[in-house]
Amino acid sequence: MSDLLTSIKPAVRQTQAYTLKHLQARVKINQNENPFDMPEPIKAAVAQVMFRKPWCRYPPFVPMELTERLAGFAGWKSNGILVGNGSNELIEAILMVTVEPGMRVTIPQPTFTLYKLLTTILGGQCQDVYLTPDLDFDIPKLIEAAQQTDLTILCSPNNPTGSLLSRSDLRDILRAAKGLVVLDEAYHEFSRQTVVPLLQEFDHLVVLRTFSKAMAMAGLRVGYLLAHPLLVEQISKAKLPYNLNVFSMAAAEAAIEHFDLLRPQIELLIQERKRVYQELQQIERVKPYPSQANFIAFRVDAAPADVFTALYSDGVLVRDISRYPMLERFLRVSIGTQVENDQFLVALRRFATSI
Amino acid sequence: MSDLLTSIKPAVRQTQAYTLKHLQARVKINQNENPFDMPEPIKAAVAQVMFRKPWCRYPPFVPMELTERLAGFAGWKSNGILVGNGSNELIEAILMVTVEPGMRVTIPQPTFTLYKLLTTILGGQCQDVYLTPDLDFDIPKLIEAAQQTDLTILCSPNNPTGSLLSRSDLRDILRAAKGLVVLDEAYHEFSRQTVVPLLQEFDHLVVLRTFSKAMAMAGLRVGYLLAHPLLVEQISKAKLPYNLNVFSMAAAEAAIEHFDLLRPQIELLIQERKRVYQELQQIERVKPYPSQANFIAFRVDAAPADVFTALYSDGVLVRDISRYPMLERFLRVSIGTQVENDQFLVALRRFATSI
Repeated sequence: MSDLLTSIKPAVRQTQAYTLKHLQARVKINQNENPFDMPEPIKAAVAQVMFRKPWCRYPPFVPMELTERLAGFAGWKSNGILVGNGSNELIEAILMVTVEPGMRVTIPQPTFTLYKLLTTILGGQCQDVYLTPDLDFDIPKLIEAAQQTDLTILCSPNNPTGSLLSRSDLRDILRAAKGLVVLDEAYHEFSRQTVVPLLQEFDHLVVLRTFSKAMAMAGLRVGYLLAHPLLVEQISKAKLPYNLNVFSMAAAEAAIEHFDLLRPQIELLIQERKRVYQELQQIERVKPYPSQANFIAFRVDAAPADVFTALYSDGVLVRDISRYPMLERFLRVSIGTQVENDQFLVALRRFATSI
Repeated sequence: MSDLLTSIKPAVRQTQAYTLKHLQARVKINQNENPFDMPEPIKAAVAQVMFRKPWCRYPPFVPMELTERLAGFAGWKSNGILVGNGSNELIEAILMVTVEPGMRVTIPQPTFTLYKLLTTILGGQCQDVYLTPDLDFDIPKLIEAAQQTDLTILCSPNNPTGSLLSRSDLRDILRAAKGLVVLDEAYHEFSRQTVVPLLQEFDHLVVLRTFSKAMAMAGLRVGYLLAHPLLVEQISKAKLPYNLNVFSMAAAEAAIEHFDLLRPQIELLIQERKRVYQELQQIERVKPYPSQANFIAFRVDAAPADVFTALYSDGVLVRDISRYPMLERFLRVSIGTQVENDQFLVALRRFATSI
C-alpha cells in the first residue's frame, strides 16, 4: 500500500485536500452564495434550450456566442476572453502554463486557499505576503514581492476578509511586477469597482470573474478570464476542450441578457452588508471588518468553534475561518436575505450575551 | 510582446493547442457522438430538478448520490470513485498529481491526443509505443515500456483506431508496470468488455469512463474514475472543488436510472458498426480496420483531405485523422443512425468510383 502512493508526487502527498464538511441548515450563509435564486424568466429560457438541444452532441469547441456576449458585458475584446467551468478551472489553467517546480508565486495571506493548493501541487513555492493588522493589503510588501517573484495572485475583494485593492495600488503592483499579475475579482459587483479597464494599460494583467456570486449561478459553474489575446492563446492550451456544458452556457447567456433582473438583488445585498456590519459593531465581544464583498469577516472574543456551534444550534450556518493565517479568532458570514441576516444577528447576540 | 510570453513555460509555448474546426453538416459523424438524443423521460426528469433546485447554491462538495449510483452501476466501491467534468478533467487531475518534469510516461500512438498534450505541459516526457501495422496494441513493447516508465496511459477501445486491449494483455502490462496504469475505457460499452473487475486484483490500475459516448451526454460533460480509495484520495486533491454542475449531476443520475432506455441504442450502434465495416470492405480504394468502438478508422488510396472535402460537399462530416502518427492515409467515421450511415456510404462510394 505504501508502495502504491510512491507514484504520487511528494508535494501532493504532503498537501491537505480542499474540503468542506456538508451541513444542512435553515439559514445557510457559509459559502458566499447569492441567497436569491435565479429569476424565473431566466430559468424558463434555459429550460427551452435544454429540450431543444441534443444532449448527445458536444458543446461548440469555441463558445463564440457566450464569449461575444461577455465581451459586451465586461467591456473587453472577445479574443481576450476564456470561459471556464467555474473560475477555479481558469486558475488551474493559468498555473499549469506558468508554474514550474521551484518557481516563486506571490500570494497574500489569508486568501482563497485554492491558489496555494494548486501552486504547491505544481511544485511552485508560495511567497506569502500577510495583510496588515487591519486586514488591508500590505502594498509596499506586495510591490516588493511582485518585483522578485514570477507570478502574483490577488483576490480583490479578498476572500475571506472582504479587503479591496484600489486601482491605483494595483497599478503600482503591476508596474513593479516581474511576471504576470492575476486579479481574481469574483466579488467585484459588490464593490462597484472593476479592474478590467487596466487591461488596456497592462499586457501582463489577467482578470478572473465568476457567475457563482452576484450572478446567482454557483450551481452551474461558469467563470471567465480576461487578458491579452496572446496570453489567452497560451492559457487556453491548458484549458480542457469542451469544458463548459451546454446548459451552463445557455444559463450564462440568459443571465447576461436579463442582467436587469439580477442588478436589484445585488443592490439589496450591498445595503444589507452595510446594515449587518453596523449591527455587528453593536454586539459585544464582536468586531466586524469592513468588506466590499457579499460577506463579512468578524473577530470574536471567544473560541470560534463555540460561536459556530451556538449559531448552528440556532439553525444558522456560517463559516469558521479560524484555520486561516491571522484569523485564529474569526468567522465569516455571507450576506443573505433580510430575514436570514436578522436570524443570524439574533443568534449571535444571544451567544454574545450568554457568555 | 515577446516579453509577455516569457511568463509562459517553454513546454507550453512549443505545444500546439488541441483544436477542432467548427463545421456544420447534415450528417455529423466526426466526434464519436451518440447520434440518438437522450430519451424524453430522462430530459423531463432533469427539467424538474432544474426548476426545483436553487441555481444560486453550490453543488454538494461530495456528490454522494451520484457516486453511490455509479458504484452500483459500475460494480466498484463508492469511495473508489471520483466524478469529473468530463473524463478529461480526471485525466488532468491524474497527471497533475503524478507528473514531474522529466518523468517518463508510456503512451501508445496513435491515440487520443490529450494525454500527450497535458503530459508535455506538465513537463513529462512521452515514451511513444506505436501500434502494430495492423493497428493492434504492441503488447511486448508496451510491457517493456511500462517496466521502465513511471506511468502508462492506455485507451481501449483506442481512439481513433478502435483497437481493443484484451483483459489478459492488460493483466500482463499491469504485472510488469513500474507505476500506475490508466485505462481509459470511454468506449467500453461498444466492446461489451470492461476492465473494472481487474481493480480487485491490481491496486495501481486507474479506470476512466465517460457519459459522452454510449450514455448520450457529450453536451453535459460527465466522466468518472475508478481506482483504489487511497489513490482516489490523492487524485482528488487536484480535482477542482464543485467541478460538476447540478444539472449534469442530475442528468447522470437519471441516465443510470433509465439505462434500459439507452441500452437498445447501444446495441443498434454495434450492429450498425458491423454493417458499415462490411460495406466499407466492399468499396474500392478503401480499407476499414476492425473496431470495438462506435467509430471506424479507414485507410484510403487517395489524399485524405480530398476524401474529406468530397464527403463534406455531400453534407457528410467525418474526421480527417491523417495528422496522427501512422495514419497519414486515414479518416475516421463515427457510427450514426442507419440513415446517416447510408448517406456516408453513398458519398464515399461516389468518391471512390470518381477517381
